[in-house]
Amino acid sequence: MPKTGGSLSVRDQALAAKEAAKVLRNAPTELKNRALFAMADALDRHKDSILQANFADVAEAQTDGLSKALLDRLTLTEARLEDAADGLREVAALADPIGEVVAMGRRPNGLEIGQVRVPLGVVGIIYEARPNVTVDAAGLCLKAGNTVILRGGREAIRTNIALVDVMGEALADAGLPKESLAIIQDIDRSSTQELMRLSGIIDVLIPRGGRGLIQAVRESATVPVIETGEGNCHIYIDYNAPLDMALEIIINAKCQRPGVCNAVETLLIHTDVAGELLPVVASALTKQDVVVKGCAKSLELMPSLEPADPKDWETEYLDLILAVKIVDDLEDALTHIEEYGTGHSEAIVTNDYRHAAIFREKVDAAAVYVNASTRFTDGQEFGLGAEIGISTQKLHARGPMGLKELTSTKFVIAGSGQIRI
Amino acid sequence: MPKTGGSLSVRDQALAAKEAAKVLRNAPTELKNRALFAMADALDRHKDSILQANFADVAEAQTDGLSKALLDRLTLTEARLEDAADGLREVAALADPIGEVVAMGRRPNGLEIGQVRVPLGVVGIIYEARPNVTVDAAGLCLKAGNTVILRGGREAIRTNIALVDVMGEALADAGLPKESLAIIQDIDRSSTQELMRLSGIIDVLIPRGGRGLIQAVRESATVPVIETGEGNCHIYIDYNAPLDMALEIIINAKCQRPGVCNAVETLLIHTDVAGELLPVVASALTKQDVVVKGCAKSLELMPSLEPADPKDWETEYLDLILAVKIVDDLEDALTHIEEYGTGHSEAIVTNDYRHAAIFREKVDAAAVYVNASTRFTDGQEFGLGAEIGISTQKLHARGPMGLKELTSTKFVIAGSGQIRI
Repeated sequence: MPKTGGSLSVRDQALAAKEAAKVLRNAPTELKNRALFAMADALDRHKDSILQANFADVAEAQTDGLSKALLDRLTLTEARLEDAADGLREVAALADPIGEVVAMGRRPNGLEIGQVRVPLGVVGIIYEARPNVTVDAAGLCLKAGNTVILRGGREAIRTNIALVDVMGEALADAGLPKESLAIIQDIDRSSTQELMRLSGIIDVLIPRGGRGLIQAVRESATVPVIETGEGNCHIYIDYNAPLDMALEIIINAKCQRPGVCNAVETLLIHTDVAGELLPVVASALTKQDVVVKGCAKSLELMPSLEPADPKDWETEYLDLILAVKIVDDLEDALTHIEEYGTGHSEAIVTNDYRHAAIFREKVDAAAVYVNASTRFTDGQEFGLGAEIGISTQKLHARGPMGLKELTSTKFVIAGSGQIRI
Repeated sequence: MPKTGGSLSVRDQALAAKEAAKVLRNAPTELKNRALFAMADALDRHKDSILQANFADVAEAQTDGLSKALLDRLTLTEARLEDAADGLREVAALADPIGEVVAMGRRPNGLEIGQVRVPLGVVGIIYEARPNVTVDAAGLCLKAGNTVILRGGREAIRTNIALVDVMGEALADAGLPKESLAIIQDIDRSSTQELMRLSGIIDVLIPRGGRGLIQAVRESATVPVIETGEGNCHIYIDYNAPLDMALEIIINAKCQRPGVCNAVETLLIHTDVAGELLPVVASALTKQDVVVKGCAKSLELMPSLEPADPKDWETEYLDLILAVKIVDDLEDALTHIEEYGTGHSEAIVTNDYRHAAIFREKVDAAAVYVNASTRFTDGQEFGLGAEIGISTQKLHARGPMGLKELTSTKFVIAGSGQIRI
């Protein structure tokens, strides 16, 4: 059944992707867009075979006892597949980042130096169950002039192979190398290790997943890595916060989609408003099936809460659980965030102008919010178009990564015989 | 004798640097500049003790039989020390990159999203003999709001400790944490390994040195790395190149400073001009003590040349040696550069407009030159002010890295109660 690169080793797939990258990096925008539309149309056309492959993955996952939440992430429906195809068309509509002149100037010796945006080259992506990532990543990498090697989850392997086969054929029909898009078929430890260590062939590796994956990649990779996704996010409710606004933001950040990295995990409440706010928050959250875990002070106010232990402060639940801690003041909240935050998204709700400024300045995170839900940390919401992940490191990209973050630059220097003195 | 962090483990030094980074990241420009001037003045004031420490390093290195070139790099003179101090004053004069608003906009839902330049945090630098790097790195990291841990070469340890002691005292006098600037005192494999694996404490590691160092860091580091420096640079002389210009550029790129990464290592000559150019180039280079190694075709033209073997194409000599290969055409030159280049600096000398454009587009390197010497790849020459190194990777920074490349960004979002729907 598998056609795409079935007989190739990971290294050979990567070498083929590196060759293909030479074509992709100079591919005209129009050609890349044509390929994106062709890929979208092919997904529509081959809907049935893709859904069939997905059905087999889901059936096996059910037998293996995958959790309901994971099964939902794994399942493709006709509507989800159409959304993925539309996503490719949206990427075609985004401006091409390649060729942008980032800076340009003439030096005193007459050298004209320009800094031009160019593709990264070969991008490796390691991710887990959701098959729509396969389509999104293929589209974004292509538009940014990169080739891509995907290592998806084992549970989604049939679906991913079907998706890559269909999109790869479309790429080739549009006139771009089929090898621009590769998927690793043997999902085991050794193939993943091999992928992480192909320095000189793969230009960047983006792991998308939980702490375990990120740590494993950090340990083993010789290829430069962009770490993504771990979000132990906080909301701090200040002494004079508008409590209605606070409540709405807390509920949204916890409940609107609890399984994602920008959902809130710990709520910090200024002691002056805890007596009024905590019961209202706890009651509203309980109605939404959220388990609220409180610090010792919280339990004094509401003995019915579950007790939080120190482990809770460092836990990214990704679930309907919220830890609550009552703090003495802004300083106390900042100290807690500095100690336990993962540098993803942090929010303050306040009506104190100076406190808002201090929070914005002092919190060291990819996204720092005043009076808004942490759930907005997202490429679409930030206006970057689609997103390839959310970087939680400081190198190269921080926060939601769009097309621009999938590029590098080069200096281009035009002279008339200049030599260095 | 050693005072600075003498009793601290690498990890403890890094933790102290991380604490200090909380102060540095919000330090006002004026305070950072005051500290830079104080450091420069302190270097001037303590000239004697620093030169004495350097004298001891040089004496030991001589006993150990260090090469003349390395001894020269290790030696501090009064003039060199004054230059280093002046370098700090020049860094003070550069614009502060921190706080720059890189992008700003209002989303349809009213959220105001700004992307602001912030420091990286803690920077680790691994480098070899030259003690002026100690001063340069300290100054650049400080101005960009970072703290820094230095691991210099073993031969320069007394000098480096003396420099860091003097600059650290000055930092403290100016009102910034002394721990902002640390040097590792036990220069052995285990301390270096420890430094490379402090992920979560050190934000970025910049190795400055040869291929061996870079590879070792790539293998072991869990901290994000910016690779620097390896330069197997080429100059391609096209069929209609102005030969006088070609000669001048070749001599400059090989001889002006042969031991650095942007010096040319292989010369590619179009077969149509080889007969005229090669004898002139070889004779001029020989007069400057350069050993010229030729391909088979070159040897047909000039049997007196040393023969080049395939190893030569991949060698970064960093010495007065030049490999020469006669190529059939531009395509042939591009293929050679793609195969052997390290993505540092590549040049074409031509008077063919289309060839210049093709070379600029197709060569995948940090700096691509038309009709100029590769020796210009340098932060000062590119107008970035001082430089912390030359990145040969595509992630985060590519080419000469100045102050901006020592920063990250964060998103700052101002809302009025927005929640995600």
